[in-house]
Amino acid sequence: MALVVKKFGGTSVADTKHIRNVAKRVRNSHQNGDDVVVILSAMAGMTDHLIGLANAVAETPDRRELDVLLATGEQTTAALLAMMLKDMGYKAHSLLGHQAEVVTDCEYGNARILEIGTNRIKRLLAESNIVVIAGFQGVDIKGNITTLGRGGSDTSAVAIAAALNADVCEIYTDVDGIYTADPNICPRAKKIKEISYDEMLNMASLGAKVLQIRSVGVAKKYNIPVHVRSSFSEEEGTMVVQEDCVMEQLVVSGVTHDLDQARITLRKVPDQPGIAAKIFSPISEAGILVDMIIQNTRASGQTDLTFTVPKADYKRAMDIQKRVAEKIGAQKVFGDPDIAKVSVIGVGMKNHSGVASLMFNALARDNINIIMISTSEIRISCIIEEKYAELAVRVLHTTFGLDA
Amino acid sequence: MALVVKKFGGTSVADTKHIRNVAKRVRNSHQNGDDVVVILSAMAGMTDHLIGLANAVAETPDRRELDVLLATGEQTTAALLAMMLKDMGYKAHSLLGHQAEVVTDCEYGNARILEIGTNRIKRLLAESNIVVIAGFQGVDIKGNITTLGRGGSDTSAVAIAAALNADVCEIYTDVDGIYTADPNICPRAKKIKEISYDEMLNMASLGAKVLQIRSVGVAKKYNIPVHVRSSFSEEEGTMVVQEDCVMEQLVVSGVTHDLDQARITLRKVPDQPGIAAKIFSPISEAGILVDMIIQNTRASGQTDLTFTVPKADYKRAMDIQKRVAEKIGAQKVFGDPDIAKVSVIGVGMKNHSGVASLMFNALARDNINIIMISTSEIRISCIIEEKYAELAVRVLHTTFGLDA
Repeated sequence: MALVVKKFGGTSVADTKHIRNVAKRVRNSHQNGDDVVVILSAMAGMTDHLIGLANAVAETPDRRELDVLLATGEQTTAALLAMMLKDMGYKAHSLLGHQAEVVTDCEYGNARILEIGTNRIKRLLAESNIVVIAGFQGVDIKGNITTLGRGGSDTSAVAIAAALNADVCEIYTDVDGIYTADPNICPRAKKIKEISYDEMLNMASLGAKVLQIRSVGVAKKYNIPVHVRSSFSEEEGTMVVQEDCVMEQLVVSGVTHDLDQARITLRKVPDQPGIAAKIFSPISEAGILVDMIIQNTRASGQTDLTFTVPKADYKRAMDIQKRVAEKIGAQKVFGDPDIAKVSVIGVGMKNHSGVASLMFNALARDNINIIMISTSEIRISCIIEEKYAELAVRVLHTTFGLDA
Repeated sequence: MALVVKKFGGTSVADTKHIRNVAKRVRNSHQNGDDVVVILSAMAGMTDHLIGLANAVAETPDRRELDVLLATGEQTTAALLAMMLKDMGYKAHSLLGHQAEVVTDCEYGNARILEIGTNRIKRLLAESNIVVIAGFQGVDIKGNITTLGRGGSDTSAVAIAAALNADVCEIYTDVDGIYTADPNICPRAKKIKEISYDEMLNMASLGAKVLQIRSVGVAKKYNIPVHVRSSFSEEEGTMVVQEDCVMEQLVVSGVTHDLDQARITLRKVPDQPGIAAKIFSPISEAGILVDMIIQNTRASGQTDLTFTVPKADYKRAMDIQKRVAEKIGAQKVFGDPDIAKVSVIGVGMKNHSGVASLMFNALARDNINIIMISTSEIRISCIIEEKYAELAVRVLHTTFGLDA
């Protein structure tokens, strides 16, 4: 008998037929003797529908009221599933965010969980209930409804699993696990059986489609095993676990790519203290996220500085930098929106030298020019021309022995 | 400057365009310097849609979970209106039932309000907010969501008006007031300017289409003036007030009719103590509401007993009574589903004799046979053949000087 938290995403509860499938899976686990807590998202498309309503009534929908509105999505699915389970003859009980005491800060639309009171959930479980909790929502200390941001139900699930000290948090979704690369561009990509929290955090561009990346941070902090699996099959998916628990450590676990990158370079920037702040403050004030930054010092007290931004912000960032360049006396600003980032990720990398040179050589063999490089303990990323992105992923997938 | 509670029904918030109309009306009142509390229903059709969802997932939807589901309807409109008002530049704040501290008993689906905590509402008003409250919903002492039954938003509005000691509770709807008779069958019906709580309570069959009748009981208890008016015009509607405050007391204020009646008669019932209980207990156990009951004692220790039930329950009630008649030794059971009830209502009746004979004579003149009669202090009702119902309403409307 285990305490299991199961989270079902929007496509898994898309309509009453799908909700019946969820009810059956939950029932099976309950019949196996598990204590089951279910976290639900809104029906697929519901959140977008509600945002559409909000945009129809207000140019800038108030964030507090938007959260009140959006919270109805998960309230609906939680009530429907509890209703269905009871109709099937099981004890079930829905809880909304405030009833489950998911206490958050008051950052509407992107709230962070501060604490979770588990007394009510534990009492309901002790009374043999299947507890069905509306994901994505919480309550601030003043009693206002808050939401956790897109994909927030994953974080609800992992945080509730942590608060309950659950044996596992199962994330049911419309894919059957995490792959070594995006199967759409790399046909030889294969499902990963086990992956460490850190690798998962670095695989955002693969994993974010499947799992809200914030939830992985929570899982790591509280050491909650997360099982990413399909709602539509009984097959095992991918376990996200502590590094020590990964059975078979590969040097590289996966290859990711990110097409949403654009590059901006400032040439011959006077190399003075405080110059970086002058360049990046206006960018951050404009709400633009900078990903990679590289600085090459030239002789003669000048430096070249290159950074990347999301493609959608490229034009705005260029305009800002043209003004900055003039002010600080940089020689020239130029950029390129047609770039991509490919990365290899693996905790095994920590103990193996040579991963970087293997990567660079593999790209060079296919005449893929590397524009920028950045590395972390368990990741190496290269900025390349966008048109080579898919080729690069396939080449690296083969190079690091990941092909199925 | 007044404290005004405004309630808008489902057709008044049917879509974002209609909600904009509501926002403007609320804004106007706020700009006049009034403290405004708005109570909203769900968008027209929403509650039925949600009940449809519930019936799709469960044969017998659990009542607790159904309330969680239904509460999303009013949550949606409350958030949207608050959002729109804020976008128009006003301070506004939505409150759900539990946030507005509308504490009810735990009779899911038909909860009664026990008390309303007004501190939060008053604080928000003091901070110049327009307070937008989700109607129809409350919370029991354990923190479960409850709903107040069909039309419950009217009761929410009047109860909140009472708790706040508001100057008036305005009920905005898709008709422009209460009429002296149903205008669909009585073209000369006219809008009533003022009506007493008691008259309104007796006019259920006219008023229930406009106003949940429970709300009138609350209004009477706390002496809250209720203004029933149209969302779509600025015209004054009907004021429901204390009897003393009705300016112009007519003998008869209105004529109502109710086609949903069927009659059952037990002939030659042995007239013994306890016999009525034997007849009516099985009816009430079957959940059938009995309206009128008339008993005529014959000589020879026997009695005839006639009562009315809703048409939909006629066959069931007949079956029950056939068994009862056999058991208690009544001679015969017979009935008629093709009857109707017409009533004249007016507080003025208390001080005027002769209303009954005027009514009976008027019906007799048109050869309308009276099958049953029942009276209260301010109402006289006759059961007649259904086919005469519309004629009877028009005749009585003219007889009592109500024609426009």
